Amino acid sequence: MNKQQLIDQIHQKKSFLCVGLDTDINKIPQELLALEDPVFEFNKQIINKTAEFAVAYKPNTAFYEVYGAKGWQSLERTIQYIKVNHPDIFIIADAKRGDIGNTSANYAKAFFNTLNADALTVAPYMGQDSVEPFLGFEDKWVILLALTSNKGSQDFQYLNVGERMLHQQVLQTATTWASSEKMMFVVGATHPEELGEIRKMLPDYFFLVPGVGAQGGDLQAVAKNGLNKDCGLLVNSSRGIIYASNGFDFADRAAEEAQKLQRQMAAVL
Amino acid sequence: MNKQQLIDQIHQKKSFLCVGLDTDINKIPQELLALEDPVFEFNKQIINKTAEFAVAYKPNTAFYEVYGAKGWQSLERTIQYIKVNHPDIFIIADAKRGDIGNTSANYAKAFFNTLNADALTVAPYMGQDSVEPFLGFEDKWVILLALTSNKGSQDFQYLNVGERMLHQQVLQTATTWASSEKMMFVVGATHPEELGEIRKMLPDYFFLVPGVGAQGGDLQAVAKNGLNKDCGLLVNSSRGIIYASNGFDFADRAAEEAQKLQRQMAAVL
Repeated sequence: MNKQQLIDQIHQKKSFLCVGLDTDINKIPQELLALEDPVFEFNKQIINKTAEFAVAYKPNTAFYEVYGAKGWQSLERTIQYIKVNHPDIFIIADAKRGDIGNTSANYAKAFFNTLNADALTVAPYMGQDSVEPFLGFEDKWVILLALTSNKGSQDFQYLNVGERMLHQQVLQTATTWASSEKMMFVVGATHPEELGEIRKMLPDYFFLVPGVGAQGGDLQAVAKNGLNKDCGLLVNSSRGIIYASNGFDFADRAAEEAQKLQRQMAAVL
Repeated sequence: MNKQQLIDQIHQKKSFLCVGLDTDINKIPQELLALEDPVFEFNKQIINKTAEFAVAYKPNTAFYEVYGAKGWQSLERTIQYIKVNHPDIFIIADAKRGDIGNTSANYAKAFFNTLNADALTVAPYMGQDSVEPFLGFEDKWVILLALTSNKGSQDFQYLNVGERMLHQQVLQTATTWASSEKMMFVVGATHPEELGEIRKMLPDYFFLVPGVGAQGGDLQAVAKNGLNKDCGLLVNSSRGIIYASNGFDFADRAAEEAQKLQRQMAAVL
């Protein structure tokens, strides 16, 4: 998917919601466990009910790898299901990969060819040649970690490197690697002021903003500080939506929570 | 595996060799492709012939994920095969994971329980709560990226943060998270001088040293700068060993290359 297609979808749905598919077998309705692939079945029902309110889905690979090869199969089925039934939706594999060039080239094939995701989250620590192999795929995206939503973001990301903090240096350097047509950045909702600073630095790039909901981030503050002329935001909620209920009504309750966020988004767009 | 068991194995085999299982279906003997799981078959033959010269194997997950769920099955089989046939050998899943705590906890289960690896490489950018979930498993290890072997290590890892460079700050901070009984660090063979500095900073920790062979690092320089009283090094070679030949003699040729390195290691120990 290219940038204009993503922007068009945002305006059409009046939403910049990304639903995180962090599907944990211990948190889904127990009735699903009798099925052959409970994780996929859960995702399918969540997708069916929330697709009208969301522009992106973001499965986090950890929640699939924990079940080994079987988990990867659930992930493959989930992405395939979205591609077939909702081809307009942006799919982010939240995998936080990154390695030497030879290895990153294999991760790129794994996520963009084998899995057919539209975007992959990538860790910046290993520098340019660890990121570049992901940039050579048409209409596929790198979403580079800049300022993450967790407490540990304080450990290194705020260190002063010359006149800037490390996360600002990562942003500055990475914009020389790829334009806003190929790269986005992760900026946590738990840092709304820094989000405003980063928006000033990078007026054109999309930001993937995790941390709204269970992690305490606030949608209004994110919108106020992060919106640009194209919207420029994908705001993720995972647990707050998919675990709104663990009863038979889980998908309907997920849709309600997704719709609540979508309405708030429509109001600020 | 605990630290003393690893040290004992190193002294017994007179080796600190780690063999990287970066198995690429395009580089293995074509005869293997007719088998049901060519990647596992290749690994099995490499393991059978090199186990006497190596103390560790390091499958890199990218080379398995590229084949999707089937690739994960090859990875599971490979680790299981080593565990059953060579229970004394240290298994490193080179996956460079790291995410918010809730997610890292799932990666930890994926690699330490489901896959049963002894150690996992972890990226430091997201800080302490992204690393801690990996530290709560008995006799399992975190190998944190500090100074990587690739060109991109220049982009951020050498930035000055106060009186130190970023990679030194990562080392300094991370040693407050875990002792040398639970944590090791990645220090690339392509930076022998910095390896010496790092050894002075951290006399007791093991370092996983990639970059000998195909990436240009030199074993003598690594040993000179990195050895400590326990050895304290695991030196990895991947392509230089496993692709020594792509003919029917691939496993024998891999053994020869592994033995060459082992003999050099015996001489410096």
